[in-house]
Amino acid sequence: MTYTHFDVADSGKIRTVTFNRPEKRNTFTMEMCLELGRLFDRVDADDDVRVVILTGSGPAFCAGAELSEGFISDAELTEEQRAMVAEVGTVDGVSRDPGGWLALKIARSTKPVIVAFNGAAVGIGVTMSLPADIRIAAESARFGFVFTRRGIVPEAGSTWFLPRLVGISQAVEWVVTGRVFGAEEALRGRLVNYVVPDDQLLTKARELATEIVESTSAVSVAAARRMLWHGLELPSPWYGHAAESHGMFAMGASPDGREGVASFLEKRPAEFPMSVADELPGFVPDWPARPADL
Amino acid sequence: MTYTHFDVADSGKIRTVTFNRPEKRNTFTMEMCLELGRLFDRVDADDDVRVVILTGSGPAFCAGAELSEGFISDAELTEEQRAMVAEVGTVDGVSRDPGGWLALKIARSTKPVIVAFNGAAVGIGVTMSLPADIRIAAESARFGFVFTRRGIVPEAGSTWFLPRLVGISQAVEWVVTGRVFGAEEALRGRLVNYVVPDDQLLTKARELATEIVESTSAVSVAAARRMLWHGLELPSPWYGHAAESHGMFAMGASPDGREGVASFLEKRPAEFPMSVADELPGFVPDWPARPADL
Amino acid sequence: MTYTHFDVADSGKIRTVTFNRPEKRNTFTMEMCLELGRLFDRVDADDDVRVVILTGSGPAFCAGAELSEGFISDAELTEEQRAMVAEVGTVDGVSRDPGGWLALKIARSTKPVIVAFNGAAVGIGVTMSLPADIRIAAESARFGFVFTRRGIVPEAGSTWFLPRLVGISQAVEWVVTGRVFGAEEALRGRLVNYVVPDDQLLTKARELATEIVESTSAVSVAAARRMLWHGLELPSPWYGHAAESHGMFAMGASPDGREGVASFLEKRPAEFPMSVADELPGFVPDWPARPADL
Repeated sequence: MTYTHFDVADSGKIRTVTFNRPEKRNTFTMEMCLELGRLFDRVDADDDVRVVILTGSGPAFCAGAELSEGFISDAELTEEQRAMVAEVGTVDGVSRDPGGWLALKIARSTKPVIVAFNGAAVGIGVTMSLPADIRIAAESARFGFVFTRRGIVPEAGSTWFLPRLVGISQAVEWVVTGRVFGAEEALRGRLVNYVVPDDQLLTKARELATEIVESTSAVSVAAARRMLWHGLELPSPWYGHAAESHGMFAMGASPDGREGVASFLEKRPAEFPMSVADELPGFVPDWPARPADL
Repeated sequence: MTYTHFDVADSGKIRTVTFNRPEKRNTFTMEMCLELGRLFDRVDADDDVRVVILTGSGPAFCAGAELSEGFISDAELTEEQRAMVAEVGTVDGVSRDPGGWLALKIARSTKPVIVAFNGAAVGIGVTMSLPADIRIAAESARFGFVFTRRGIVPEAGSTWFLPRLVGISQAVEWVVTGRVFGAEEALRGRLVNYVVPDDQLLTKARELATEIVESTSAVSVAAARRMLWHGLELPSPWYGHAAESHGMFAMGASPDGREGVASFLEKRPAEFPMSVADELPGFVPDWPARPADL
Repeated sequence: MTYTHFDVADSGKIRTVTFNRPEKRNTFTMEMCLELGRLFDRVDADDDVRVVILTGSGPAFCAGAELSEGFISDAELTEEQRAMVAEVGTVDGVSRDPGGWLALKIARSTKPVIVAFNGAAVGIGVTMSLPADIRIAAESARFGFVFTRRGIVPEAGSTWFLPRLVGISQAVEWVVTGRVFGAEEALRGRLVNYVVPDDQLLTKARELATEIVESTSAVSVAAARRMLWHGLELPSPWYGHAAESHGMFAMGASPDGREGVASFLEKRPAEFPMSVADELPGFVPDWPARPADL
């Protein structure tokens, strides 16, 4: 599988995906959106990939939507463009925001996603990262939820994700002012988990990815990250408790659960046998609450 | 329009509202509550106001409810008091908490609200600020959710707002102990966005307000802040995505959306033409989930 | 009342409960779970206890589940084990996770709970603490949500509690990596409210407990902490406002509410007369949203 706008490289069970349109500051096109969405679909089905690292080439991570594409009416679309719009689909009578189509694929991923911000992440460049598991910023990275400065509104699911990630107070300040801010503010505001010197960005990302690959059960990780996000949707801890009781019952008796206990008692590294592609247990929640046509 | 307990001054499109009962540490009366609520109603309808700054005169911001008013029975109310209670109204058979009546007006504002804490903000003095967009503390400001020390319970919507602003852990600690704490702790606990030297409090507030006025679309700001709060009420990111798809569809084709893209491509400041009072698009959510009689 | 695995000591109205299986690093057994759950039931009914401090003896707070107990089938259970499983009960056709059974008792407590982490808190050792009111770590304490390293999933209600305490981003990182981390990271990530030198851990816990006992109304505290957690379950601030209006109406006219105002106006310490065991007002929310069989 080859991609026009991304470099994709595997090392061990870590897949590193790099925006590769540096001459355009990796600004986001419909074609890039679709390529990246399909890439995440394939990762789900591939047990040889345990973690995805997403980063950018050149000075920017992704400097926002490619605005020179403009807003074009249906009548003016080429056949190729028409096919792309059709792939993203509609909701409730309007075209789905493509950034949201992508972000929800990342949210549904069964593999952890680490975003390594090498430079500017503006608009969709930052909102697409919100459903990822871990965000790391190079010291020179910059961020902006600039929608109010463009006369539009936040997208890519960010009105749902951002207040849950950084708190509603920080979310409102960044969005209402629309201002661009640096990596330290992103860390203080909890948008990113780590800030590292520019030349250590990928080292840090790989270190975290390696820790996940070497220490954890792929099925436990897929289940746990879904359960945490799902926990945000549940009306009370009693429902979380019920879901966890099912999870403990299923995983405790599973090959991975038995290996986890045995390896701990035997003081040796665990070798978890289960496959995410084929053996994801039935208790693992999807994101069930959706509008009727999604 | 004049106010008994507030100074109101406009500069550019920034309205600065100052509690003006310094000899009483700006303690909160029913009359002040109604004046402030009506003030926010008027701001919504006035396109000449883009941002509201709320601050206090004298050593305190607002040192809580004016407790010397006491709890008076219906039989003892003067006609004037009876009219004030009627304006606030009832919910589910009891008088509505006036602080909540006010806080929900601030929450529903279409204009960003910046609170500049010049001194003590205790009880209703701090809870009323929770739905505001940005909170700035002077170094000498102090805060207290002192309800448990008065034998009562938190109000002004704070049982909903506070855990979402600062996290449930910090919310519980401040409320259960009821203790008074300083500006640095408020910053660490994320109750305020900034702490500044006392003599720079209004400078900082005006700087942020000016940035909003000069850089953003008033309609985008009104839409975005409602969408973020509304995002907290939605059961899953799929619903956020659906709402955003409608928003992008409407704003992308709007005069403000077109000006946002054009000004960006032409590398010039944007001049957004749309009016919040007259042109707030239909996709902008109200706060829909309410008890039947509110 | 005596306990096999805990030391229980009262001082004033503060009950200090200490895990006392230091030779096993206080690893968690079914018997300990049941003892601790019953202890919290008794605290609710006892007006002589205002605050509970939970801590550990020896180098660990609680180093996780006692894995040597293993996963045993129903056929192999002793009569005593069968009785313990029956006490915890089932949900939706599976045995309830015992850690969740316990955590929900802590969540329903009418008394504030302060957890003082004297050392390692791993797995159930940390998840059981999430519904507590205040968490304090000794400098040498360490934490781990290690479930993915054991081939299982998070429990004790943590898929609901953790993202609400520390934000979904931090929750996902700690759970997906499963790594063990120190007290400073716990503080930055907002898992604990304070980090103190090891020899000041209990001093700090008692200082906070004493402040609560001496300054607050027991009924206000019981009501306020329930209202804040309940606020997280409500779909909009309008519902929080309605609940608070009932609370203000009830407490304002109550003996504790009258004493709170009177003592403030008379500038003297308050002496709140009301009893949590006998006079908890009807407006105080339980945790109502539950699966049908819980």
